[in-house]
Amino acid sequence: MGKHLTTREEDYSKWYNELVVKADLAENSGVRGCMVIKPYGYAIWEKMQAELDSKFKATGHENAYFPIFIPKSYFSKEASHVDGFAKECAVVTHYRLKNAEDGSGIIVDPDAKLEEELIVRPTSETIIWDTYRKWIQSYRDLPILVNQWANVVRWEMRTRLFLRTTEFLWQEGHTAHATKQEAIDEAEQMMNVYADFAENYMAIPVIKGTKTESERFAGALETYCIEALMQDGKALQAGTSHFLGQNFAKAFDVKFAAKDGKLDYVWATSWGVSTRLMGALVMTHSDDNGLVIPPNLAPNQVVIIPIYRNDEQYEAVCNEAEIILKELRSKGIRVKFDKRDTQKPGWKFNEYELKGVPLRIAIGPKDIENNSVELARRDNLTKEIVSREGLDNKIDDLLKEIQNNLFEKALKYRDEHITEVNSFDEFKEILETKGGFLSAHWDGTPDTEEQIKNLTKATIRCIPLDAKNESGVCVFSGKPSEKRVLFAKAY
Amino acid sequence: MGKHLTTREEDYSKWYNELVVKADLAENSGVRGCMVIKPYGYAIWEKMQAELDSKFKATGHENAYFPIFIPKSYFSKEASHVDGFAKECAVVTHYRLKNAEDGSGIIVDPDAKLEEELIVRPTSETIIWDTYRKWIQSYRDLPILVNQWANVVRWEMRTRLFLRTTEFLWQEGHTAHATKQEAIDEAEQMMNVYADFAENYMAIPVIKGTKTESERFAGALETYCIEALMQDGKALQAGTSHFLGQNFAKAFDVKFAAKDGKLDYVWATSWGVSTRLMGALVMTHSDDNGLVIPPNLAPNQVVIIPIYRNDEQYEAVCNEAEIILKELRSKGIRVKFDKRDTQKPGWKFNEYELKGVPLRIAIGPKDIENNSVELARRDNLTKEIVSREGLDNKIDDLLKEIQNNLFEKALKYRDEHITEVNSFDEFKEILETKGGFLSAHWDGTPDTEEQIKNLTKATIRCIPLDAKNESGVCVFSGKPSEKRVLFAKAY
Repeated sequence: MGKHLTTREEDYSKWYNELVVKADLAENSGVRGCMVIKPYGYAIWEKMQAELDSKFKATGHENAYFPIFIPKSYFSKEASHVDGFAKECAVVTHYRLKNAEDGSGIIVDPDAKLEEELIVRPTSETIIWDTYRKWIQSYRDLPILVNQWANVVRWEMRTRLFLRTTEFLWQEGHTAHATKQEAIDEAEQMMNVYADFAENYMAIPVIKGTKTESERFAGALETYCIEALMQDGKALQAGTSHFLGQNFAKAFDVKFAAKDGKLDYVWATSWGVSTRLMGALVMTHSDDNGLVIPPNLAPNQVVIIPIYRNDEQYEAVCNEAEIILKELRSKGIRVKFDKRDTQKPGWKFNEYELKGVPLRIAIGPKDIENNSVELARRDNLTKEIVSREGLDNKIDDLLKEIQNNLFEKALKYRDEHITEVNSFDEFKEILETKGGFLSAHWDGTPDTEEQIKNLTKATIRCIPLDAKNESGVCVFSGKPSEKRVLFAKAY
Repeated sequence: MGKHLTTREEDYSKWYNELVVKADLAENSGVRGCMVIKPYGYAIWEKMQAELDSKFKATGHENAYFPIFIPKSYFSKEASHVDGFAKECAVVTHYRLKNAEDGSGIIVDPDAKLEEELIVRPTSETIIWDTYRKWIQSYRDLPILVNQWANVVRWEMRTRLFLRTTEFLWQEGHTAHATKQEAIDEAEQMMNVYADFAENYMAIPVIKGTKTESERFAGALETYCIEALMQDGKALQAGTSHFLGQNFAKAFDVKFAAKDGKLDYVWATSWGVSTRLMGALVMTHSDDNGLVIPPNLAPNQVVIIPIYRNDEQYEAVCNEAEIILKELRSKGIRVKFDKRDTQKPGWKFNEYELKGVPLRIAIGPKDIENNSVELARRDNLTKEIVSREGLDNKIDDLLKEIQNNLFEKALKYRDEHITEVNSFDEFKEILETKGGFLSAHWDGTPDTEEQIKNLTKATIRCIPLDAKNESGVCVFSGKPSEKRVLFAKAY
């Protein structure tokens, strides 16, 4: 079928790129750095969206929608924000095309130049806080707990499907609070929501922590993050939640009257995850045969494939398969019955293995005779003949087991790849041989952080929330340190 | 509460604008022509999306996502398409900002000019058909039944919240077929899906028809539409579905091998509805007291408001209200219990009337004594005292009755405002005095159509699918005609 993949061993990066395309998740478009998310990839993203959205709503958030365009002047209002995003933004300068007078084709109409250029949003803090100014007068208007699902654009020079694209899809929560503590609690809450989603739906273990100053979001006082580890030993930031202090409220003059009538600036958070999570999902679980999708996010959790040699067998087998289909659906299991007569069973086996469907049922005349089916697991590639009796319960249990197994496997890998290092030689050696997270003492200065980055390409992924106090010396400068942080090379 | 509305009688247009803002549906942003969809408005849009999405999936469609940017050259490939959209598009010309050397602020970096300008999509036929070329080789790859939920931008000069905005949200279906008939069937099917949604969820009666050549989508061979009538006698196009023939397949060279091996161009459709439907919803049902939302789309179908004079009463009433809340929720009814102590009942009554919540339950100490509640309908502003026994069933029935009542009321108004006219004098008189749809003979020429438009501002809204053959003469030219078409002034 021409779908043989490069193996992870041969070339991890190539394996990933091939898999994303061959498994019909996404592909590059004719527009530089922009991807097309294909129906199968989008179906997984929709599952992610649905789960996240219900978690946001369960924690009191509502959805809204803000303009895609941001006037250039808005950006300049928050100094560190503009520094963070100005270098990589798409700028709209005109609002009309016209036919060239010399007949050479269609051109931008020079008479349709905008008075002020518009930026295609790379993130929406500025346009949203410009709006919140109108919504907030008193403490009664707070908190505002709003999320938006949207597309954003960051003009990246090197792009990779899902991991780094010029345009990507995401959600961005933007909340406004009366007190500093409430905003901090909100930022921490959303980090926990993300961690819960990553672990229980994506089956990806994550480390919760805060970013160092130099790795923080442009405009944040604190950035909380969840960090995951991919199969090649590189880290991936899977979600961030920012405590923005009063920075945006000050930049956009958003004040509220407290109960005592005193005016104060509003406290803010923002938090987001994106289609980048699709990349994390692929790179955490998939193997050299194709995707492995955790049951909780699989568009199809089970596929049924009929085995037959003639029309009579086809009919008998399909009849039985339809019964199984109904049984499983009535249990709320997402099942596809692929009864197409245009493809052979072997082709279908490969196809659904490549697509990462968690369980495959094959059923032929022999199975009907024996009152059984063949059940194959995608996660560990095992097969067994199981009885038709209680098949629905068996599958229900297996889906939970697979979900759990994927998480445990990823957790074991991750935990085996957190290495405590106590000298810079050790740091470099482990980084090059084993990869993963390096748990090391750091003197707390941006200068040391940058020098380590320049020498090794490793960055501080986070200061883990559960890092214990431990006196030591910085692996690089030898200066005193009170806790270990996690370094890694990262996506 | 300062929320008194201009009445429809006083100024229909002002009434609409005020209502959209005061009922927290949407507001203008700091970006010209772009709106902010506020949480309450967005919650209604989410309900619409959910219903439409499930209808699309039930008819075999899948969602996907295509880039927001379209290279300028793609537009030129389909001649009528570029004519239709070139005059109103946002053009990205640069990809970076920088600090001005003279310290005057942030400017567009002249060194970061794109080789080819990118258009922010006004619609996605071109980028999608450029992609379909890679997806389609043989009849086995067909049909492709794809939809996307997205934002689009059309640089409108005069904008109005929801009805006409520079950026709006929509869905656009793009399908590819092996035969002409299959594509036509698909375009008709989706018009019917839209009509079903409009009538059964939005409670808006619609007329199904086709557009005249001059009103067709740029690039379509046939445009099917559903046309609704607003309370001011103006028509509103609520959804369109286009049979695109082989135009885009030819422009983007998309061919497929049929079963017999012969190569042919692929047949196409596209279809869409947008946040414009929010405007139609408001203008069809709402009144001088505020919004009227049909139960099938109301984020809250019922609101419960406690009536009390002291803490003891408050506690007793809230206890009972919580029981009602649970009863109704277990029936799948969307209920809000507004137990806020910071607002008086009268304020709450006004608030939920303005927001169009279909049913309001008020419950006080007297009601508890009498084992009753007060039930108020938003649609006809009636109130009654009803027994607590069987309240859940009563409400369930009432919600259905209200949904039906809104439809019937709109249908009656619409039917009373379809007038057969047989001369141009009559045409002009009815148009100015009564408005609505004018059912008139037309000679079938774009020239007559344009002259009528220039003289009266009325356009041909559609050639109704159920128009019967009837010999007559064109109201304008006196030339022979075989069927009546519908004219109206339109949004």
